[in-house]
Amino acid sequence: MVYITRRERFNAAHKLWVKSWSREKNLEVFGKCANANWHGHNYDLFVTVKGIPDPLTGFIVDVKKLSKIIKNVIIEQLDHKNLNIDVPFIPEDMQPTTENLVMLIWEQLSPNIEGCELHCIKLYETENIFAEYYGE
Amino acid sequence: MVYITRRERFNAAHKLWVKSWSREKNLEVFGKCANANWHGHNYDLFVTVKGIPDPLTGFIVDVKKLSKIIKNVIIEQLDHKNLNIDVPFIPEDMQPTTENLVMLIWEQLSPNIEGCELHCIKLYETENIFAEYYGE
Amino acid sequence: MVYITRRERFNAAHKLWVKSWSREKNLEVFGKCANANWHGHNYDLFVTVKGIPDPLTGFIVDVKKLSKIIKNVIIEQLDHKNLNIDVPFIPEDMQPTTENLVMLIWEQLSPNIEGCELHCIKLYETENIFAEYYGE
Amino acid sequence: MVYITRRERFNAAHKLWVKSWSREKNLEVFGKCANANWHGHNYDLFVTVKGIPDPLTGFIVDVKKLSKIIKNVIIEQLDHKNLNIDVPFIPEDMQPTTENLVMLIWEQLSPNIEGCELHCIKLYETENIFAEYYGE
Amino acid sequence: MVYITRRERFNAAHKLWVKSWSREKNLEVFGKCANANWHGHNYDLFVTVKGIPDPLTGFIVDVKKLSKIIKNVIIEQLDHKNLNIDVPFIPEDMQPTTENLVMLIWEQLSPNIEGCELHCIKLYETENIFAEYYGE
Amino acid sequence: MVYITRRERFNAAHKLWVKSWSREKNLEVFGKCANANWHGHNYDLFVTVKGIPDPLTGFIVDVKKLSKIIKNVIIEQLDHKNLNIDVPFIPEDMQPTTENLVMLIWEQLSPNIEGCELHCIKLYETENIFAEYYGE
Repeated sequence: MVYITRRERFNAAHKLWVKSWSREKNLEVFGKCANANWHGHNYDLFVTVKGIPDPLTGFIVDVKKLSKIIKNVIIEQLDHKNLNIDVPFIPEDMQPTTENLVMLIWEQLSPNIEGCELHCIKLYETENIFAEYYGE
Repeated sequence: MVYITRRERFNAAHKLWVKSWSREKNLEVFGKCANANWHGHNYDLFVTVKGIPDPLTGFIVDVKKLSKIIKNVIIEQLDHKNLNIDVPFIPEDMQPTTENLVMLIWEQLSPNIEGCELHCIKLYETENIFAEYYGE
Repeated sequence: MVYITRRERFNAAHKLWVKSWSREKNLEVFGKCANANWHGHNYDLFVTVKGIPDPLTGFIVDVKKLSKIIKNVIIEQLDHKNLNIDVPFIPEDMQPTTENLVMLIWEQLSPNIEGCELHCIKLYETENIFAEYYGE
Repeated sequence: MVYITRRERFNAAHKLWVKSWSREKNLEVFGKCANANWHGHNYDLFVTVKGIPDPLTGFIVDVKKLSKIIKNVIIEQLDHKNLNIDVPFIPEDMQPTTENLVMLIWEQLSPNIEGCELHCIKLYETENIFAEYYGE
Repeated sequence: MVYITRRERFNAAHKLWVKSWSREKNLEVFGKCANANWHGHNYDLFVTVKGIPDPLTGFIVDVKKLSKIIKNVIIEQLDHKNLNIDVPFIPEDMQPTTENLVMLIWEQLSPNIEGCELHCIKLYETENIFAEYYGE
Repeated sequence: MVYITRRERFNAAHKLWVKSWSREKNLEVFGKCANANWHGHNYDLFVTVKGIPDPLTGFIVDVKKLSKIIKNVIIEQLDHKNLNIDVPFIPEDMQPTTENLVMLIWEQLSPNIEGCELHCIKLYETENIFAEYYGE
């Protein structure tokens, strides 16, 4: 079993804000991340798949095809978007935290991976913070 | 003359949008950067000052003090903010492009640098794009 | 189960030196790392915790709080310190190698993590060397 | 059990090309990677071993010795070489993909690791693509 | 005057080899870089242009257009190519060193830059070596 | 005129401490950097030389030879050393700040560069702080 990882990037705005909470409660819990007019990040997304290399091509997956799938299914939806407003697959009442995003990206990507198996979604929000999800 | 550089970081939302233009014109010129609900970036700011090291301390400037000045004057205004709405020193009719930001940051920071001279403002918008300004 | 990682940094001096060995034996085993007057590193520390995101906040843990805990319990003890002399939680007769440091940092940090579970301590000594410890 | 990783680097030329296929078929499957006159990469190799730190030295393995082994067994064979032509341990009919390389490097390195256990071979082909192999 | 820089990347094979020299002389001067069957690199290209930001758009240049020009004029010619054989604008008797490449890239790119001025071509061959050219 | 840069690295201990000052004064001015038992850094050194590429070799300088000179003259003196104690070319009463180090490294290296001209010494102390010196 060999693992291969493809990095893609997207730039997005978001804020953390629980609608049923007061402004004070939101600021207390989320601090600067609750700024009413949003802030944003350059997100680095690492998608890892696993499988056995094809004896002829040496590929688990054609990485260019994997890249196209990630771009179609994920990057097109998230890049230069507002994660609180613009993305159909992010539920309105779910905070767009890095933790939630890795699970949502897994759900979107998983049914679109063919010929190998999705292993890990890893997402950097900043150089100091990243989340990982292995599907369970 | 020795040059010393301090990096600071901020995360912000912005969009590029000329109010006097139609939506079509804005999308034609700015593409994805004109997304109505904003997008965002992790900005990397490099502030370079120049001077002659003090014979006793070996400092051009106390970098911790320089860091505090940058944080007070710039980062506090820009971090976790919307560059189109939240920042007093960004004129309402000026696009928050990286090119304009380096000039605006220079204007804010320059009068606050003491004991040495501001040399360069360098700002990364993504790992692939950065702007520099030397004050003229 | 989602994993979230926070990076913190510290700069420290150390040397590798077994007191019961001769100078020759120390130099033979540890090479340049046995330099009598110490040398030093910029250490990059990655702390990974795991848990289930809170349905309301989307957090496994408030990363700002996690950062404060790491700073209080670890960084305050190690940053701008001599790892052979200045750190109470490093036993006098234990070499401050990266391998030993990840275990010692785990021991210190583990009882201070609340509401989620410590998963991994990863420590870079240089861009070419890092150690990882998973608690067993 | 502690894991320690050493990074080494090599620069090599390669192409992806199945000899039994037509030029058209090769270009269709491998795209630019099938360029007849080769192309090349700066490869970043991460070798991870695991073990219990020695109570006296604090070492799982002397990283300098590990580095020498990696250099002798792997880097000397791959650095500034053509992976399709120059490397005895890459079978002539096996594509030098990153997926195949991690398995081949494991096979070469594994019998040469003493006093600890090889855990993972990770190889970056570009900043956007890397493969990992854990020996099974 | 503001400077803006765009990074693009290409992967290529090359060798250093003076045809009028013996094999021994080539190996003596160029070492491993003279490997007969080539080796290769991931090149990082930084193109810097300078100008005055447009008062309406805040652009010196539309970076997406600059990226397209660099891709059409440079990357298409160099990416997944052999720099000794495949590139029309590299003279047959000119070594494809990083030093020569920055001058050749300047010559190709300079007449294609419109509305601002080419300032610098910077090219990384490895993380440890890069060349810069300012057009004179 | 083309510029070529070689990166080398060294790991060293240091502290900032003016002997004629009280402990209180040193802590007030230098903060954590005055820790009595030293701290340390991974230093990244960038040496830039300039010249005209040789028409035959395409070299301003053989980068491998430049690397050897930097290693002999600078890295051997600084790597795994204490910058306050172990380095003959750092005057005892001069603080080993990054600002002073770039000037001292220039003085050492400049007479040893042959066939091209030393242009810049750039030294990273951390990922957030670096100094540059151009010889005047």
